[in-house]
Amino acid sequence: MSAADRVGLRHGAGGRAMRRLIEEVFLGLGGPVEDGVGLAAMDDGAAIRVGDQWVVMTTDSHVVHPRFFPGGDIGRLSISGCVNDLAMMGATEPLGLTCAVIIEEGFPREELERIRDSMQQACRESGANIVTGDTKVMGKGEVDGIVLNTAGFAVTRRVVTDAGLRAGDKLIVTGAIGDHGMAVMTRRHGLDIEGDLRSDVAPINRLVRAALDAGGDDVVAMKDPTRGGVASVLHEFAEKGKVGVVVDEQSLPVHAEVRAAGEMLGIDPLVVANEGKAVIGVRAGSAEKVLAALRAHPLGREAAIIGAAVAERPGQVIVDTGFGRRLLAEIEGEPLPRIC
Amino acid sequence: MSAADRVGLRHGAGGRAMRRLIEEVFLGLGGPVEDGVGLAAMDDGAAIRVGDQWVVMTTDSHVVHPRFFPGGDIGRLSISGCVNDLAMMGATEPLGLTCAVIIEEGFPREELERIRDSMQQACRESGANIVTGDTKVMGKGEVDGIVLNTAGFAVTRRVVTDAGLRAGDKLIVTGAIGDHGMAVMTRRHGLDIEGDLRSDVAPINRLVRAALDAGGDDVVAMKDPTRGGVASVLHEFAEKGKVGVVVDEQSLPVHAEVRAAGEMLGIDPLVVANEGKAVIGVRAGSAEKVLAALRAHPLGREAAIIGAAVAERPGQVIVDTGFGRRLLAEIEGEPLPRIC
Repeated sequence: MSAADRVGLRHGAGGRAMRRLIEEVFLGLGGPVEDGVGLAAMDDGAAIRVGDQWVVMTTDSHVVHPRFFPGGDIGRLSISGCVNDLAMMGATEPLGLTCAVIIEEGFPREELERIRDSMQQACRESGANIVTGDTKVMGKGEVDGIVLNTAGFAVTRRVVTDAGLRAGDKLIVTGAIGDHGMAVMTRRHGLDIEGDLRSDVAPINRLVRAALDAGGDDVVAMKDPTRGGVASVLHEFAEKGKVGVVVDEQSLPVHAEVRAAGEMLGIDPLVVANEGKAVIGVRAGSAEKVLAALRAHPLGREAAIIGAAVAERPGQVIVDTGFGRRLLAEIEGEPLPRIC
Repeated sequence: MSAADRVGLRHGAGGRAMRRLIEEVFLGLGGPVEDGVGLAAMDDGAAIRVGDQWVVMTTDSHVVHPRFFPGGDIGRLSISGCVNDLAMMGATEPLGLTCAVIIEEGFPREELERIRDSMQQACRESGANIVTGDTKVMGKGEVDGIVLNTAGFAVTRRVVTDAGLRAGDKLIVTGAIGDHGMAVMTRRHGLDIEGDLRSDVAPINRLVRAALDAGGDDVVAMKDPTRGGVASVLHEFAEKGKVGVVVDEQSLPVHAEVRAAGEMLGIDPLVVANEGKAVIGVRAGSAEKVLAALRAHPLGREAAIIGAAVAERPGQVIVDTGFGRRLLAEIEGEPLPRIC
């Protein structure tokens, strides 16, 4: 069997390889969703009309390694990831979360309780409630420690997709980029970085609510830049909205530690995973209002307008470095596996 | 660290040990669910009131080993398990399923496609639709092949819980018991059993619909006898309904091959997992009507009344062997790990 006939790590890394695998193998699973967002949309979740509302649904498995990292752990990640995916569809009040745990035989009970406590804390911060669950145990060596799956559902009157950009819209990122991925990478490899490199993992549904309240229908696209980072989000926005995207590199909020780690590792913070951020597309007339609302929230103080959608080069992302422009290639996948 | 401080295989086996782990570690995660079924109910899923309807939600991870077994595979299991859990709450028309896949690096693409095809087939049989998903890849040796998580949601006007039995109610099983667990066990251990030992894995939402249509409000309790088998279900019914349960052993439908395998392995088919069956509690006056409706359905031909709830010995399960009565002890857990 050739390598092409086998699943590789790149297929789980949030970039082109993963999209191809999903398109080629899994998309056939989804039947048509009338008047809604189904599997084929490859959005953060699904939206199904029930009466005059939308039920939004999302799922993610969490396999992050190491399980505990500066700024968070797999428990906090599992709740934040789920709540944030719902919020990215416009559903900022989770009605219920499910939690399925797969544990390796011999896993320390004390670690399990720490993870549980983190989940509980993130539930409190977001107003989420775990309503049902499942527990499986696999034998020693059959799974690496613990895997957490969360699925969530929520109800909303308006769905925000990834496809709403048109030329002229502004792009806002809700804070500094690359913190999560860099914190996990440097911890995993024992790199010694000056300063306080911490994951940004947090539920941001209330921050997103503030943006939606400020911008109303002028908020036209949202996505959380997890695997593949802000770069992947911008590629999805450009492709689905059939617009070009120009990013002003100098405007990107990046913490000094992340910049230093990125230079050491040769990794652009634009392609690094975040777990407490959103990229938001807003009609130009409401951009400053949305920005102000974000900055007024503790989780949005470093929010910035980072670029705009343009009519030229539909489907492409251009970085304006201040000295010139370059095309941002879509990456094959996140630089490291098991980042979330 | 002592063994008591670590998670063991028994903690995932559907019996007392698992219930204790969930009670001690995870129940704290669930906030109160007003006017609904939340985590604390430890039912097949959750039910949350939205307007004049209930949104029902469920989740399960599937880790069955081997992935392909006589009568089915992990793909068919993942859809059936999810659809059946919804149906057990009274929600027989799944509105949407999520599917999260975790794949080991190097997993053969061809197997992935076979699993996808089985999922698709089970979706067709049940009318379910996968609306959103997630793909993760773990490194070689970090997960054993593939793990599938499904979560589902559905809407219903009436929720059927595990707690509705009262003295006098009849207990119906929708078909022969123990097929799934015995098929997986004998395949895993390469046992040579005479005859055609096949898993019963199937979505039974339409069968359950037939029972609900026939019995209406007289259908008062439902649960699918997966890990821990029919015995576990009866213990839950007895405990949650605060009744005794008497099972007529001679009335239990058991295929000859399962009986033979059970005798060879020393395992009572009552404690073995099923993946296409339900145990249904019905008010006595409607029991024959429900039984007839089940038997009229292709998946319910072997349905049988297997016992009744009684006022004596609340919380306990008594087996009437035809020669005498014995208490059925609640097992510590399913005899084999990774049965589903």
